[in-house]
Amino acid sequence: MPFLSTEGARQIPLDGSFLAGSASADLKPEEILASVYIPHSRKWEFVSAFRQAQCHHNALPDVNAGMRVLFSEGTDTIEDLSIAFGGVGPATVSAHRSCQQLLGRHWNALLLDEACRHLLEEVSLPGSALGGKVEFKRTLMVSFLFKFYLEVLQGLRRKLKLSSESADSQRSPVIADRFLSALEDFQVTLPQGVQTYQRVDPRQPLQDPVGRPIMHLSGLKHATGEATFCDDIPRVDEELFMALVTSTRAHARIISIDSSEAFALPGVVDVITAEDIPGANGADDDKLLAVDEDAIKHNSFLCPEKKLEQGNIEEAFENVDQIVEGEVHVGGQEHFYMETQRALVIPKTEDQELDVYVSTQDPAHVQKTVSSTLNIPSNKITCHVKRVGGGFGGKVGRPAVFGAIAAVGAVKTGHPIRLVLDREDDMLITGGRHPLFGKYKVGFMNSGRIKALDIECYINGGCTLDDSELVTEFLVLKLENAYKIRNLRLRGRACMTNLPSNTAFRGFGFPQGTLVTESCITAVAAKCGLPPEKIREKNMYKTIDKTIYKQAFSPEPLIRCWNECLDKSSFHARRTQAEEFNRKNYWKKRGIAIIPMKFSVGFAATSYHQSMLHSPRVPGRSLNIHRRNIQKSPTRGSREKVTMARNFGDGWERAAALVHIYTDGSVLVAHGGNELGQGIHTKMLQVASHELKVPMSYMHICETSTATVPNTIATAASVGADVNGRAVQNACQILLKRLEPIVKKNPDGTWRDWIEAAFEQRISLSATGYFRGYKAFMDWEKQEGDPFPYYVYGAACSEVEIDCLTGAHKKIRTDIVMDACCSLNPAIDVGQIEGAFIQGMGLYTTEELHYSPEGVLYSRSPEEYKIPSVTDVPQQFNVSLLPNSETPLTIYSSKGLGESGMFLGSSVFFAIADAVAAARRERDLAEDFTAQSPATPERVRMACADRFTDMVGWRSVPTSSALLPERLSSCVNRDHACV
Amino acid sequence: MPFLSTEGARQIPLDGSFLAGSASADLKPEEILASVYIPHSRKWEFVSAFRQAQCHHNALPDVNAGMRVLFSEGTDTIEDLSIAFGGVGPATVSAHRSCQQLLGRHWNALLLDEACRHLLEEVSLPGSALGGKVEFKRTLMVSFLFKFYLEVLQGLRRKLKLSSESADSQRSPVIADRFLSALEDFQVTLPQGVQTYQRVDPRQPLQDPVGRPIMHLSGLKHATGEATFCDDIPRVDEELFMALVTSTRAHARIISIDSSEAFALPGVVDVITAEDIPGANGADDDKLLAVDEDAIKHNSFLCPEKKLEQGNIEEAFENVDQIVEGEVHVGGQEHFYMETQRALVIPKTEDQELDVYVSTQDPAHVQKTVSSTLNIPSNKITCHVKRVGGGFGGKVGRPAVFGAIAAVGAVKTGHPIRLVLDREDDMLITGGRHPLFGKYKVGFMNSGRIKALDIECYINGGCTLDDSELVTEFLVLKLENAYKIRNLRLRGRACMTNLPSNTAFRGFGFPQGTLVTESCITAVAAKCGLPPEKIREKNMYKTIDKTIYKQAFSPEPLIRCWNECLDKSSFHARRTQAEEFNRKNYWKKRGIAIIPMKFSVGFAATSYHQSMLHSPRVPGRSLNIHRRNIQKSPTRGSREKVTMARNFGDGWERAAALVHIYTDGSVLVAHGGNELGQGIHTKMLQVASHELKVPMSYMHICETSTATVPNTIATAASVGADVNGRAVQNACQILLKRLEPIVKKNPDGTWRDWIEAAFEQRISLSATGYFRGYKAFMDWEKQEGDPFPYYVYGAACSEVEIDCLTGAHKKIRTDIVMDACCSLNPAIDVGQIEGAFIQGMGLYTTEELHYSPEGVLYSRSPEEYKIPSVTDVPQQFNVSLLPNSETPLTIYSSKGLGESGMFLGSSVFFAIADAVAAARRERDLAEDFTAQSPATPERVRMACADRFTDMVGWRSVPTSSALLPERLSSCVNRDHACV
Repeated sequence: MPFLSTEGARQIPLDGSFLAGSASADLKPEEILASVYIPHSRKWEFVSAFRQAQCHHNALPDVNAGMRVLFSEGTDTIEDLSIAFGGVGPATVSAHRSCQQLLGRHWNALLLDEACRHLLEEVSLPGSALGGKVEFKRTLMVSFLFKFYLEVLQGLRRKLKLSSESADSQRSPVIADRFLSALEDFQVTLPQGVQTYQRVDPRQPLQDPVGRPIMHLSGLKHATGEATFCDDIPRVDEELFMALVTSTRAHARIISIDSSEAFALPGVVDVITAEDIPGANGADDDKLLAVDEDAIKHNSFLCPEKKLEQGNIEEAFENVDQIVEGEVHVGGQEHFYMETQRALVIPKTEDQELDVYVSTQDPAHVQKTVSSTLNIPSNKITCHVKRVGGGFGGKVGRPAVFGAIAAVGAVKTGHPIRLVLDREDDMLITGGRHPLFGKYKVGFMNSGRIKALDIECYINGGCTLDDSELVTEFLVLKLENAYKIRNLRLRGRACMTNLPSNTAFRGFGFPQGTLVTESCITAVAAKCGLPPEKIREKNMYKTIDKTIYKQAFSPEPLIRCWNECLDKSSFHARRTQAEEFNRKNYWKKRGIAIIPMKFSVGFAATSYHQSMLHSPRVPGRSLNIHRRNIQKSPTRGSREKVTMARNFGDGWERAAALVHIYTDGSVLVAHGGNELGQGIHTKMLQVASHELKVPMSYMHICETSTATVPNTIATAASVGADVNGRAVQNACQILLKRLEPIVKKNPDGTWRDWIEAAFEQRISLSATGYFRGYKAFMDWEKQEGDPFPYYVYGAACSEVEIDCLTGAHKKIRTDIVMDACCSLNPAIDVGQIEGAFIQGMGLYTTEELHYSPEGVLYSRSPEEYKIPSVTDVPQQFNVSLLPNSETPLTIYSSKGLGESGMFLGSSVFFAIADAVAAARRERDLAEDFTAQSPATPERVRMACADRFTDMVGWRSVPTSSALLPERLSSCVNRDHACV
Repeated sequence: MPFLSTEGARQIPLDGSFLAGSASADLKPEEILASVYIPHSRKWEFVSAFRQAQCHHNALPDVNAGMRVLFSEGTDTIEDLSIAFGGVGPATVSAHRSCQQLLGRHWNALLLDEACRHLLEEVSLPGSALGGKVEFKRTLMVSFLFKFYLEVLQGLRRKLKLSSESADSQRSPVIADRFLSALEDFQVTLPQGVQTYQRVDPRQPLQDPVGRPIMHLSGLKHATGEATFCDDIPRVDEELFMALVTSTRAHARIISIDSSEAFALPGVVDVITAEDIPGANGADDDKLLAVDEDAIKHNSFLCPEKKLEQGNIEEAFENVDQIVEGEVHVGGQEHFYMETQRALVIPKTEDQELDVYVSTQDPAHVQKTVSSTLNIPSNKITCHVKRVGGGFGGKVGRPAVFGAIAAVGAVKTGHPIRLVLDREDDMLITGGRHPLFGKYKVGFMNSGRIKALDIECYINGGCTLDDSELVTEFLVLKLENAYKIRNLRLRGRACMTNLPSNTAFRGFGFPQGTLVTESCITAVAAKCGLPPEKIREKNMYKTIDKTIYKQAFSPEPLIRCWNECLDKSSFHARRTQAEEFNRKNYWKKRGIAIIPMKFSVGFAATSYHQSMLHSPRVPGRSLNIHRRNIQKSPTRGSREKVTMARNFGDGWERAAALVHIYTDGSVLVAHGGNELGQGIHTKMLQVASHELKVPMSYMHICETSTATVPNTIATAASVGADVNGRAVQNACQILLKRLEPIVKKNPDGTWRDWIEAAFEQRISLSATGYFRGYKAFMDWEKQEGDPFPYYVYGAACSEVEIDCLTGAHKKIRTDIVMDACCSLNPAIDVGQIEGAFIQGMGLYTTEELHYSPEGVLYSRSPEEYKIPSVTDVPQQFNVSLLPNSETPLTIYSSKGLGESGMFLGSSVFFAIADAVAAARRERDLAEDFTAQSPATPERVRMACADRFTDMVGWRSVPTSSALLPERLSSCVNRDHACV
């Protein structure tokens, strides 16, 4: 490796002393690296490299390795050997001693065993190794060596055969075909796919965009970078930048704050603390700025247990062929929106007015929180949202905190304040998806018919309530997924831990909870010796029926999705092919899975029969009351808490809009929904265009603002376009009604003619639109209700191939069939399905949060936390929308699809599980291993137990506790302690 | 005068050589002026100074003078004499030669005559003297000398009497008492006054602010400077400042534009010309940016004559005792809003969106103009108006021009553009009130009963149509003022001249036109030998009657105002006292006048029976069609023109509002009116508070914006609060209706309880409000209609005292009685009346525009153009609102008072005329001099013809042409040429 400087060039050999960190090998300040010289390998020399990371691309390796062997000319006798590993220590580690010990040996199975033993002895990872994963890394070391062994063996045989003068060719062992798969690496291929949707009626006017695949109006801008987000707002005169200083301890009391060091830094203008807050400092249990952080009580739940039960479960268990009990662990998930949390607060000079630009799913909530924090009425505070770079639920509650903190600074200093979290802070401060620990007990007949099922779920709520109670409710309501089980008990609890408070996340409990249900089904299948899809089909809803909470529905679209997915994916043929593949390959296994889904959209209504409630049909303030009951002293803080929670809690997806037609005929639409990248503005303009019968080019949406449409709810729960579309429709219909006499009088006139005439006839061309929301209710005492307006049905089939030696997998193909009814915009809806599926896939396969034992997040960057990249997309990825489906309930009969695709990502999880099961069957291991999400390479590798895992002392029949990550363990232990 | 520098001090005598501009008297760069040494005068020395300016304070003098005489000890023999004048040349002029010639002479009448002759001979002003006014200035020179002569004479007599050893005391002439008034200067006293209005019903709830004198919500902020106007918006990132370069020639063709010199200036980024305009460059006859300025055709009218006629005027003239013909000249007026024209245009990065912050009375019009100029639809352009620092009609049309020009720059450069006119440019570029030339012929009986009246008015429209046609219409419609004259012909025409286009101005033609009517009445009074108030009373409407355009109305409130004004001002007693004063004083005269007013508010409807018109009751597009007819080629430009004119022209005072109630109970009101300082926002919150029954502290208005309330009309024509109040009321009533069931259910709840309940019950808390405007129409062919919704009645009595030697006057007292019906806010309404009165007083007394013969404005600054200051307010200034008056038509029965007070300022004009008439009667001069507004000191002085005016060759019976300022002359001459 030549280093260049004005002093000349020097060469540094990349040898053992370099790896050992010799000082003379360091690049000097005046030097540059000119080139890296890689010599040709010699005839009897073999060089290879190995690498295993959390995901295929853009990831630092868990372990990588470089191996080189030089044989004595024409023999399999080792003349020189070098083996080095990355990821097993602070620097690259050379296994120098082991290599020395193996010189002069023949390249055969004996050597392999001895080499493994030497390596594991020489290269030791302490239990506290960086990044953990000690057994996995040690397993990878020897697995890589095994791959090298095979590779060299194969090469050596070829060479020896050619130079047949040697007799050594006979000595070299032959590799059976079914083991050769160990040598193949997964190649990256460009994903391909087909999107299938129904065309609009050919009689529909060309200008009417509803149902057409209109491109997202900001699509090109997203690609070119022209789209402006909160922090793209140009610098404001005199603005200051705010940085957050977070507590370095999770349990501590703030005795005093010494800001002298901060003030000593150049450019520091002021330090904002809780004392600067004029109004309310958040909620009692969730302060905006720390006051004196009392140690959070241990061993407690955040809210009472939620429970649904039907049939007689105890009796049913007595009359089944088999009973299985199991546990399921689902890790948390970071929202990882592209745009981190940010706000720009501009104080005006008069009347305490504030302009708040904020990246939020809920500007009205930010407005309310800023109002209570500053003690300034809401009508002085205007929140603006042009667009949000992704929300996924993580920008429902938290942006209000950042908006309010920035506002405190703005009011105190009199300057505009910009607060932009960097990725690390964002990941550290804001919570994410609730990790879940589920236990099931299932009783079933040998035919696979499930007679009794008891599921108990614990979610890790973190340190405050936030949305945890609602997530628990949603979870329990949705746990049955697509299955009719007569004797069923579903229970959920939210645990309090010392982690940042977990919050809303796309799917809101469903992706975690339903993994328990589907894992249970998979376990039943294993016990019955039947493929899981058979058990799914057997237990699925078949006819018009009632859910566990007694809401009637027809599963017909669900069954259609299931059958169409089986059909489109050629499921049964491919299952046979996969089995054939598995028979032929020992080190690679394929798995295939198909998963059905029944997903309810909307903000569920809840009710508790409190005294103030006159009717269970009017949930009114019930949630609030309930919330107050569990808080010991209902102070101002708790009131704010109630307000924060209410966005999700009152079960009314109300929406509003304001539509102006200007005298030139152009139309300005404002509505209560926020553009999160999901394309709601595109859809809203489609609605306005359809209703006003004017091309979309006449329409424009500028921003979402509390000054145009007040008292909005969060854009969440899949119903954003649905309910705001109704409000826009309402406003447009009012306007069209006003225009009717003019159109009638001049039917051949143009739109502009009519608008001019309307203006001259003094007809108002501005209207508000409103949608009161769907009627919904849920009575938790009676355990019955109609908590959601409608269901989205779907099915997904995925096939994967795993590398049993490394735990890596490749996604061969995914087919999704989704019942969108009459999609408002198939381009956007398919995009939502695809995006949610991929995010779900990330949840179930690669996204893994690491914490210190004290609860400090280690994984705070894209380097440590792996969301799927383009190379993780299934090679073949097909999405089709179920044709000829309709629902009378929603706007233009189109369903909200924001969240549902998330869970379908579990089809990849179950395909991996299927592949692992195939490996374990072959190795005669128990098939009913505990399901644990995400199915990381580590878990897959260790589950495919073999002699290499045995070498590192891994137990080949894992128990749940051994598989638990620290974070979930503590959650579970605490749960048990307090049950 | 000691000058100091490091070199030491030096003394410069303020003598002849100093005045002659000796170079050695100049202050050197390193010197400072340390002090001015004024020696004590000696025993037989008299020193005095004189000064006459356009107004009392803050004005450069027309002429000032310093005079000093030293007598030989104990005699009246002149030993030394110095006389110097300012304002008669480029520097102070010393009359050295004259003084030398008078040494040794006695101080008597002979000396005075000779001194005047010498002075006029020595100090000559060329006809082209700076500021003109040659005769006036020469008259002042000798008038001042006369004052000095009298002053010294009196002092000398006293001295001689004391030192009675001299016999000269006998020789000095005695001054008669009635001439001593020449010596008294008008003193400035703090004006005092009483505001009288009716209290609200004591049963009205305390929180209901309607009818109460609520202080203007920005009142304190105006005083402290906290109120933010357009240019107070903080600097925007990357913003550029735009400066206008105006053509240096009024008639010229632009051959090419060479911007190289501009680019050579430091900091110049770009030059914007007409070629940079993407869309329409204004109207054909009114380009935003000059293209090639064709010479404007001479001798043409801007629009057809407007005419109203009733009775048989020719026949009536044959049966009257006397006929008088006369002419009236009313000068133009500069709006002189405190905040000059300005705009800030911020281009956004996406979708061609623009934010336009502009000081305008009509943001929707700015939006439309920017839209057509840039060829960008209106829905991409948002105009914001927080408040405007005065409009007075001058910010109805023009701001769109500046907004559009700035927008062109913003789009071309991609930078935010700030365009702020300085006062000089604002006065130079924007037109003002139309100057008027009126001719009347009146036939009357010796009793004062007017039998026939024929008035013809010509207004100077300037170079483009703008609002001139509408001003002509309003003028003709309103010319009859308070008088019922059976045989009446009223005609109006708008002349095209080479001046900047004149435009809307508070009163919209009425203050000019009605001065013709009232001057005619005054002339009749003079001919009949009766006081003018008798003629006014005799000819006033007495009972329910019809106007000349056949609109029925009851003059009862008019008569009540008149009588109450007579009563409150003790008119008759004070008329007697004034006559007594005038008998006793030769050089000071008092005048008193009372003027009645019938003023119609609103945007008059007009119609012309075009083919597209189905009914005269629906004016629809008539005005536009008409406009198009007079333009030869209806191009895109002309279309824009139509749009611009339509704001005033369609006769529909439509208004709209948007009211939000936030969940904390605070209310945000937006409406279509603009806060111009007139207090509309205060009134709107009073309306909202009254309607919602919630205290005003819950209410807030942030700004007027096209994004909240679209398609608004200009805030003008006195009806802003009236019609927008209806829209706000409408919105609030809609909201209250929605809240009704909640209030009924929980009558003891608080407002916040109800709002919370409403939110939870999914009731929309946002509503638009609308008011279609008053029904009105005018048929110019039939000469009949109902063009205005209602009248404001009033009467004002003013008394003044004039100085016949200088033309100065002081306002002794004004009493106004106005019929506001039930004032929405007496504090604001009285303020509007007072403000309008003072602005009218300025129009009629001090505000005078000077132009070069080519039409270039000379008077471009507050130094040259005198608006009234606090010292010009009448010493006693009482305003009372007529009690117990009601109109069912308007909101809470309150009348719009924005403009009407303007004309009442003419009471000061007629009081001055009355005083001048007294002087002329005494001097045996004709009393029926041509009325000419403004009644400047020059005109007053010259009208009080005496031997001093004779000395400068002034004709003591002025004819109209001699009195005409250049500008009006040219207008009149052109009129005649083309009649």
